[in-house]
Amino acid sequence: MKIKTASDYMESLRKLSPVIYYKGERIEDVTASPATAPHVRAAAMTYALANTKEHGHLATATSHLTGRTISRFTHVHQNVEDLIKKVKLLRVLGQKTGTCFQRCVGFDGINAMYSVAYEIDQKYDMGYFERFKKWLIRIQDENLMVVGAMTDPKGDRSKGPAEQPDPDQYLHVLKRTNDGIVIRGAKLHMTGAVNSHEILIMPTTAMDESSKDYAVACALPVDAPGVTMIFGRQANDSRRDLEETIDVGKPSFGIVGGEAVIVFDDVFVPWENVFMDGQTEFTSSLVYRFAAHHRANYGACKTGLMDVLTGAVTYLAQLQGSAKGSHVRDKVTEMIHLSETLYSSSIACSAEGSPTPSGAFMVDTMLANVCKHNVTRFHFEVARLAVDLAGGFIATLPSEYDFRNEEVGHLIKKYFSCADGLPVEDRVKIGRLIEAMTGGTAMVESMHGAGSPQAQRIMIFREGKLKEKIQFAKALAGIPSRANK
Amino acid sequence: MKIKTASDYMESLRKLSPVIYYKGERIEDVTASPATAPHVRAAAMTYALANTKEHGHLATATSHLTGRTISRFTHVHQNVEDLIKKVKLLRVLGQKTGTCFQRCVGFDGINAMYSVAYEIDQKYDMGYFERFKKWLIRIQDENLMVVGAMTDPKGDRSKGPAEQPDPDQYLHVLKRTNDGIVIRGAKLHMTGAVNSHEILIMPTTAMDESSKDYAVACALPVDAPGVTMIFGRQANDSRRDLEETIDVGKPSFGIVGGEAVIVFDDVFVPWENVFMDGQTEFTSSLVYRFAAHHRANYGACKTGLMDVLTGAVTYLAQLQGSAKGSHVRDKVTEMIHLSETLYSSSIACSAEGSPTPSGAFMVDTMLANVCKHNVTRFHFEVARLAVDLAGGFIATLPSEYDFRNEEVGHLIKKYFSCADGLPVEDRVKIGRLIEAMTGGTAMVESMHGAGSPQAQRIMIFREGKLKEKIQFAKALAGIPSRANK
Amino acid sequence: MKIKTASDYMESLRKLSPVIYYKGERIEDVTASPATAPHVRAAAMTYALANTKEHGHLATATSHLTGRTISRFTHVHQNVEDLIKKVKLLRVLGQKTGTCFQRCVGFDGINAMYSVAYEIDQKYDMGYFERFKKWLIRIQDENLMVVGAMTDPKGDRSKGPAEQPDPDQYLHVLKRTNDGIVIRGAKLHMTGAVNSHEILIMPTTAMDESSKDYAVACALPVDAPGVTMIFGRQANDSRRDLEETIDVGKPSFGIVGGEAVIVFDDVFVPWENVFMDGQTEFTSSLVYRFAAHHRANYGACKTGLMDVLTGAVTYLAQLQGSAKGSHVRDKVTEMIHLSETLYSSSIACSAEGSPTPSGAFMVDTMLANVCKHNVTRFHFEVARLAVDLAGGFIATLPSEYDFRNEEVGHLIKKYFSCADGLPVEDRVKIGRLIEAMTGGTAMVESMHGAGSPQAQRIMIFREGKLKEKIQFAKALAGIPSRANK
Amino acid sequence: MKIKTASDYMESLRKLSPVIYYKGERIEDVTASPATAPHVRAAAMTYALANTKEHGHLATATSHLTGRTISRFTHVHQNVEDLIKKVKLLRVLGQKTGTCFQRCVGFDGINAMYSVAYEIDQKYDMGYFERFKKWLIRIQDENLMVVGAMTDPKGDRSKGPAEQPDPDQYLHVLKRTNDGIVIRGAKLHMTGAVNSHEILIMPTTAMDESSKDYAVACALPVDAPGVTMIFGRQANDSRRDLEETIDVGKPSFGIVGGEAVIVFDDVFVPWENVFMDGQTEFTSSLVYRFAAHHRANYGACKTGLMDVLTGAVTYLAQLQGSAKGSHVRDKVTEMIHLSETLYSSSIACSAEGSPTPSGAFMVDTMLANVCKHNVTRFHFEVARLAVDLAGGFIATLPSEYDFRNEEVGHLIKKYFSCADGLPVEDRVKIGRLIEAMTGGTAMVESMHGAGSPQAQRIMIFREGKLKEKIQFAKALAGIPSRANK
Repeated sequence: MKIKTASDYMESLRKLSPVIYYKGERIEDVTASPATAPHVRAAAMTYALANTKEHGHLATATSHLTGRTISRFTHVHQNVEDLIKKVKLLRVLGQKTGTCFQRCVGFDGINAMYSVAYEIDQKYDMGYFERFKKWLIRIQDENLMVVGAMTDPKGDRSKGPAEQPDPDQYLHVLKRTNDGIVIRGAKLHMTGAVNSHEILIMPTTAMDESSKDYAVACALPVDAPGVTMIFGRQANDSRRDLEETIDVGKPSFGIVGGEAVIVFDDVFVPWENVFMDGQTEFTSSLVYRFAAHHRANYGACKTGLMDVLTGAVTYLAQLQGSAKGSHVRDKVTEMIHLSETLYSSSIACSAEGSPTPSGAFMVDTMLANVCKHNVTRFHFEVARLAVDLAGGFIATLPSEYDFRNEEVGHLIKKYFSCADGLPVEDRVKIGRLIEAMTGGTAMVESMHGAGSPQAQRIMIFREGKLKEKIQFAKALAGIPSRANK
Repeated sequence: MKIKTASDYMESLRKLSPVIYYKGERIEDVTASPATAPHVRAAAMTYALANTKEHGHLATATSHLTGRTISRFTHVHQNVEDLIKKVKLLRVLGQKTGTCFQRCVGFDGINAMYSVAYEIDQKYDMGYFERFKKWLIRIQDENLMVVGAMTDPKGDRSKGPAEQPDPDQYLHVLKRTNDGIVIRGAKLHMTGAVNSHEILIMPTTAMDESSKDYAVACALPVDAPGVTMIFGRQANDSRRDLEETIDVGKPSFGIVGGEAVIVFDDVFVPWENVFMDGQTEFTSSLVYRFAAHHRANYGACKTGLMDVLTGAVTYLAQLQGSAKGSHVRDKVTEMIHLSETLYSSSIACSAEGSPTPSGAFMVDTMLANVCKHNVTRFHFEVARLAVDLAGGFIATLPSEYDFRNEEVGHLIKKYFSCADGLPVEDRVKIGRLIEAMTGGTAMVESMHGAGSPQAQRIMIFREGKLKEKIQFAKALAGIPSRANK
Repeated sequence: MKIKTASDYMESLRKLSPVIYYKGERIEDVTASPATAPHVRAAAMTYALANTKEHGHLATATSHLTGRTISRFTHVHQNVEDLIKKVKLLRVLGQKTGTCFQRCVGFDGINAMYSVAYEIDQKYDMGYFERFKKWLIRIQDENLMVVGAMTDPKGDRSKGPAEQPDPDQYLHVLKRTNDGIVIRGAKLHMTGAVNSHEILIMPTTAMDESSKDYAVACALPVDAPGVTMIFGRQANDSRRDLEETIDVGKPSFGIVGGEAVIVFDDVFVPWENVFMDGQTEFTSSLVYRFAAHHRANYGACKTGLMDVLTGAVTYLAQLQGSAKGSHVRDKVTEMIHLSETLYSSSIACSAEGSPTPSGAFMVDTMLANVCKHNVTRFHFEVARLAVDLAGGFIATLPSEYDFRNEEVGHLIKKYFSCADGLPVEDRVKIGRLIEAMTGGTAMVESMHGAGSPQAQRIMIFREGKLKEKIQFAKALAGIPSRANK
Repeated sequence: MKIKTASDYMESLRKLSPVIYYKGERIEDVTASPATAPHVRAAAMTYALANTKEHGHLATATSHLTGRTISRFTHVHQNVEDLIKKVKLLRVLGQKTGTCFQRCVGFDGINAMYSVAYEIDQKYDMGYFERFKKWLIRIQDENLMVVGAMTDPKGDRSKGPAEQPDPDQYLHVLKRTNDGIVIRGAKLHMTGAVNSHEILIMPTTAMDESSKDYAVACALPVDAPGVTMIFGRQANDSRRDLEETIDVGKPSFGIVGGEAVIVFDDVFVPWENVFMDGQTEFTSSLVYRFAAHHRANYGACKTGLMDVLTGAVTYLAQLQGSAKGSHVRDKVTEMIHLSETLYSSSIACSAEGSPTPSGAFMVDTMLANVCKHNVTRFHFEVARLAVDLAGGFIATLPSEYDFRNEEVGHLIKKYFSCADGLPVEDRVKIGRLIEAMTGGTAMVESMHGAGSPQAQRIMIFREGKLKEKIQFAKALAGIPSRANK
C-alpha cells in the first residue's frame, strides 16, 4: 500500500511497533508523543510536498526500475538533472521546516548501496544487486522511509574494528545460518530512526581483510526483534515535551531531526536482505559514496535553514526599528553571502556529477566534501551574525507563562513593545525562533552530521591531485621535468 | 552586619523580600528555588574566595575610604595594580564557576559612578559625591551585592528617549518631592538582579538637553515598593529546574548569571540615594566609563570559562582515545591561543589604565573595547572548536534517566564506553558540560553582555586618532603638510 | 585573415600601431618590448590552446551566427554547457600561465552587449543588434582580441557623471555627425589593452536620464586616432623589463594581465560601430550582465593560479624535507579547500544559468557575485598560507646575479641546498615563483578585478529575496500573515 | 667614542669595512648605496629619537651596569616598566619609519644572552657572564648596533644539526685554540646586518648532547676576516636602487629592514667574546627567551606600521571623495581594531613580565607567542583591508616617469584627479605608499620574522597548562579526582 500523504505516513508509523526509550520510559506512538511528533511532522513534509503543484516536480521522480512515479527520496540518480533537483528539493524543505526532515540518510544510503552492490557482483556474482533492486522496488512502491545506519560507537578511536577489547564496538555478523545472518552492535546518532520504516545498515569505515565480519550491509524493519532504540536529548527538549506554544521556537517542527542510538542485540536478517557480507575491499567505496552524497546535501538543506534565519533577523530588525542601519544591512548581506556560498558547492558537486558503472550518478567527491566542510564553518558564522542582530533578549526573555500571567504579563508586553505599532507577539515569537535555530543541538548537527570536519579534510587532501599541481608549478618556474620525479 | 561567607550571603538574601516572577509564578526564596539557586551559588563564590589562602589577596582590597579590608567587588580602583588584580580575580572565578558570577556589574557601576559624581560636583556642587561615598561605605562595610542597572528597553531604536511614543521606554523621573524622586521604567537583562541586595540605576545612553528627566542615577534596595522582577529563560532551564544531576552540565552553577527584567512602577528613591538628576552632559562619561570597565572584564571571566572548555575537550579526547591526533592538538592549541588573545586585552587595558580627576582609575577605553569586541568573535570560535572536538554525541546523547534505566542503561553504557577503561560516567558528564557551555544562552551572553558588537565598533572608531595617523602616512609618503589640512 | 596560432597572433599585433607609453617612453612593438611581451605570451596561450588535442574542445566553439568553428573567447553562450566549458577553459589557462590571459574582458563584454543590444532594439528598433552581430562576425572570423572597456575615472566618487566639475571624468559623446560620434574620456585598469585588436566601450555604471551623453557603447580599433594608452607599473616590473631569468618568477608570463589607462581624446567612431547612444535605462543591464559574467570567471582562472601555488608549496616542502609534517599537509589541505570553494561558485552560477530574450545565456547573478566576493577573501588567505609554507627566504633571497657570481655563488648555493640531493636551482625558482604569485599586484588584481568587494555586497543584498525569506520565518514561528505586510 | 646622532651613526658605519655583495657586486659604503641607504636611515632613527624631547625618555635608559644613560636598544630590562617602555618605543618608531628599524634583534639577543650566560655560570662557572657584561658595557658606551644572529640554513629539515650530510648547515665550532674558536656556517635572514657594528651569534634551536659543537654563542665585528654578507632582494627593489622619488612608496625608508645571508668561512673569535661553547642544555633557554622577547615586539612595531596604513587609506578616501561611506568607516574601524588587538598582547606580555635569576626581566612567554601568532594573521588582514579601500589603481598606476612626461603627463593627471580640488600628487604618493606597505616582502616579514607560525603554536601548546585546565573541567562536571589521574 503506497503512502501518499502526510497522514498516510502517520498512519503507517502507527502500524509499526518499534522498541523506543526516551527519558527512561517507552514511547508507544511516535506520532503522538510530544518528544517525537515534531520530528515526525518534519519528515511528513517530504510526503506532503510531493502533492503540491509548486514543488511536486522536485519531490517526485520516475523510477528507472519500474517506470512508476515515486518519491524522489527513494530514487536512484540517473543524471545530473536528478542530482540538481535533489539539491533544490532539500533547500525548499529546509525553508518550510526550518529543520532536518531526515529522509536524506536513507536516500543517500540507497544510492551508495545500489552502485556498490552492482560492483561487488561484477567481481563476485553474489546476487546482491538483484536482491537490492527487489528490496528497493518495494521501498519505492510503498514509499517507505529508510534510515541509513552507518556510524558505529568505535570504542577506542586509536584502534580498528578487530582490535577493540569489546568486539561489539563495531556492528558485526555474529553467525550465519541457512536463512540469514545474526548481527550485533549499535549505530549512533541515527537521525529519523524512530519514525522510519526500515533500517539500511552499512559499515562505518573502510576496512581491511582483518575485519571481514564487520563488512556487512543489510536491511531490516525498525521493529525487528532485538532492535532497541534510545532517543536522545536535544537543547530545550523539555519545552517541546511540554508542548509549549511559543518558547519552543518552531511550534510545528523540531530543532533537528531527532536522533536515536539503535542497539542490535543479536538481530536476525534473512539473506534476501543482505547486500554485503565480508567483501571488505568494497567498504571504502560504500562509505565514501554515502559520505559524498550526504555531504552534498548540507549546502542545500542548511541553506534553507539559513534562509529562514536571514528572514527572521530581517523581520526582527523591522520590529525593533533598526532595519535601515548600515551595519544591519551589512550583516544580513554577509548571512546571504555565506548561505549562497554553501549552496554553490551543493549545486557544483551535482553539476559535476558522473555515472558509476551501475549507471547511478555520483556527485563530485571533492566538491561535496568542500561543501560540508564549509557548513561546519559558515553555519556557525551565520548563527553568530543572527545572534548579533537579534540582541541579547533571546537569552533573557521571560517565559511564555509570564507573558500570560495577569500580574506581570502587561508589564513585559509594554517593555518589549515594537516600533511602528507592530505586535509584541511577533517579536517574542521571532526571538524564540532565532533562539531555537542558533543554539546548541542545531549547531552541533551542522558540525558533525555527515561526518566531522577532519573527515572532510582527509578526503580533500586525498582528492587534491597534488602531483598534477606540482607539474603546473614546475612548468611555470622553468624547472625541467626529470625522469625520476 | 558584614557578610563574610557564602552562607552569610545566602542568609542575607533570605532576609530580603523582592517580588520575583518566573514561568508565571512567584519565587519566594532565591536560595532555595532550583531556578535561581545555581546562580546564587556562583555569586556566593565571590564571597567564599575572599576567605581562601590562595586567592584571598585577589578577592579583597583595602578601602581607600575607610582603610578597612573589603571585598574587591566593592572597591574603587586606586592604581594599575588594582585593575590587574581585578582581571586575575575574574579569571580565577571563571575557572571555578564556569559561568557568570554576576558581581562585576555593580562593581563597574560603582567605579563609574564614583568618578562621575565627583566631576558633576566639581561643576555644580550638588553633594552627589558625598552622598555616593556614604552609600558606598555601607556597601563595603556590609559587603553587599549591587546590580548595576543600565539597559533600558529603548522601544523604537530609531528614536531617542524623549521622542518615544511611550515615555516609559527609557527610565525617567516622574516627579520630585522634598524627600526624593519617583521613577518609572524598566531595566532589561539585569544579571544577578534577583540575588543582589541593591540596585544602582544609571542612564542607558548619552543624552542631550531634551532628555533631562532621563538623566538619572540612584540606588535602592531590590525589595523597594514598586519594584518587580521577571526572571528570564535560559537554554535547557528545565533540566536545572528539575535539578537533574548530570544533564544540567554544571551541577552546581548556572549557564550564565541569571537575568531579570526589573520593572520600576513609580518607585520612590530618597534624595540621599540620588547621584545624578538632570546633568545630561555627564551621561556620556557615566555610560562610557561603565562600558569600558565592563568590557575589560570579558577577556578575564570568559577566559576562565574557555580554560574550563579547553580542559574539558582535552580530557574528552583522552576518554575517547584520540588525544594524540595532530588535528586534536592543533585545535586545542587554537583554543588556547584565542583565549590568551582575549586575556591580553584585559591585562593591557588595565596596564594602560590612568586616573580620573576623582583619583579612581580607569582602564584604557580603546583596549577595553577591543577586548570585548574580540570576545564576540573568539568565544564563538572557541565554542565551535570545542563542539568540533567533542563530537556529535553532545547533541544526541540519551538522557540521564536512560542511563539509570534497567532495560537500556547497560546497553548505552556499553556503547558509550571509553578508551583505556576510563569510566563512561566521565564521558557523559564531560559531554554534558560541553553541551552546557557551548550552546544557546552561554554564547548569547558573550555576544551582548557589556554591549553589542556595534557599540564597540563605534568606540573603536571614535578613539582611533585618525588625524594623527593621517599625519604619519603623509610624512612617510613625502606629502608636505599644508596650512588648511 | 583568421588568426590561428600564437605566432599568427604576434604577427597580427605587429601590424597595428597603437600609441603606448610606459615609464615615460613609447613602446613600438608590444611583442618585443620586455615590458609587454610576457603579457602578450599569456594572451597567445588562448590561441595556442585551441590547437591542442587535450583542450581544443574547451577553447573553441561553433558560432551560432555562422556555424563556423571559432575561438570560445568570441562566442555567445548558447546554453549551460557553454557556460561550464568557459569555466573549465579558464581554469586550464590559469594553470598553464599562472596569470591573467586577458581575453575574458572582451568575451564578457561581447556577451553582455549582445543581449542588451537585442533588448534595446526590441523597444526602440535602433538597428544596434544587427550592427553588433556584423561586428561580432568579423571578430569571430578574424579571431580578434577585444578589450572590454568599462571603468571610468569617476572623479569625485560622491558625485554622478553629470555632476562632475570636469565632465570628462566619465567617457561621453562630445558630438554626433552624419557619419558617427566623437567621444572623450578615459578608461582605467584596461587589462590586455595594449595587445588587443579592438576596444569595446561600455558605460561604467547604471545611469539615469541626466546622463544621456554618457550612456554610450561602441567599438573601435586600438590604433584609432586620438587613442593613447599608458601602461601601468606592476610589482617587480624592473625584473621583467630586464628580462631576468629566475627572479622574475614566471620567466614566460607576467604577474597579471598588464593594465593600461586608455585616453580617448576626441575619437571618432562610425555609426556602424555604435551599439548604444543615450538609452540610459539599459545601462544597468549592460553593467550588471558584464559584471556577473566577469565575476563568474574569478572562481575559474584564479583557481588555476591557486592550483599552481598549491603545487609550488608542496614541491618546496619536498625540497626542504618538510613534506610529511602534519601542519604542512593541513595547510595544503586548506589551500585546496579554499580553491575548490571558489571553483564551486563558478560552476554553480553556470549550472544555474538561464537565457536572456536574445537567446544568449547568463550566469546566475547571485552566485556569480558570491564567487568573486569570496575571491577577494580566499585568494588572500591562500596566498597567506603559501607564504607561511614557503618560509621567509622568498623575501630575503639573494638575486640571481649573486647566484652566478664567482666569489659568493658557491656559498649561497651551499647554504640554500635541498633535502635528498634535490637541485638548489629548483628551490630558488620555486621560491621566486611563489614570491611573484603572492605579492603586491597579483593580489590587488584579485581584490579589484571585476569590481571591488562592496560592489558585490550591493548585488548580494539586492538579489537576496528578503521578503520571501521573511515569509519563511513567519510561517515557522507561527506568525499569521497580515494583509498589509 | 659614543655614537650620539644619526650622522654619528652614518659616520661610524663608513669606518667599517664589511664584505657585502648585492646583485653580483660589492657594496662599498652602505650609507651611500641606494640599495642599503634607506635601511640605514631607518636604523638611524633609533639614534635620532633619543635626542628628541618628546620620545627621548622612551629611547634611552639608565644602564644597571654603569649607571650611565644609554640607548634603550642596548639596555637589559630591569623591570616591567622597562618592558612596557620598549613596546611604546617600537610603536613610535614604526609610525615614523613605516618599516623595520632593525635594532631589536640585537636588543633581544643581548637580553636573552645576559640571563642565560648568568645561568650557565651558576652551574659551570665558565666566566661567560663577566665576559658578556664586559662586551655589553662597550656596546652601551659606544652605542653600537648589534645584529642578533640566530637562524641557520638547517639543510634537510627532517634532520637535526649533527645528522646533516653537510655539517655546515648549522653554524659550528670547527676548532678551538688557546686564543679562541674558529666557526663555520651561515646565518640567514639577518635583518640590519649590513649596517650593524657587531654580530651576536646564538644557536638556532634547542640542542642535545649530540650537537655540542653547534651550541655556540659569541660576538664579533661585522668586518671580521672570513665574514661575507650577501644582501637579499626585496619587492620592487629596483625602484629603490634607482632612487625613484615617488614610486618607491616611502622615499626615505625601506620596505623592511634589509636582510643578508652572513657566511662565516672559518672565522676566528677570541675567547673573551665567547659566551657559550657546548652547554647544550642551555640552548633551549637561549632560543626561547630570544624568541619570546622578539615575538613580543611585533605587536608594537607592526602596530606602528598599521597606524601608518590606517592613516593612508583614510586620507586616500578623503582624496577620492569616499570618506563618508559607511563601509569605508567600517573597514577603517576593523583595521584599528586588529592593530590594537596586536598591541594588547605586546603590552600584556610586558605587564606580566617577571625576573630571571640574573635580574633581567622576561616577558610572559605565552602572551608573547600569542602576540606574534596574531601578527601572522592580522597584519595580512589589515593589508587586505587597505588594498580593498585603496582601490585597484595601486596595481595599475602609470610610473612617475609618465606623470612627468610632456605628452601624457597632463592626461593622466587629469584622469587621476581628486575630490575637492585636493592635489593629484597626494593621491599618487599615498597610492604608492600603500602599494609598498601591503605587497610582497613587507608581508612575508610579518609572517616569518621572529619565527614562523608553527613555532608559536608549539610554544602555545606547551605553555597551555592543560593538566590544570582538565582539573577545572572535572570539578565543574562533578567528576571526582582519582588517585592515578
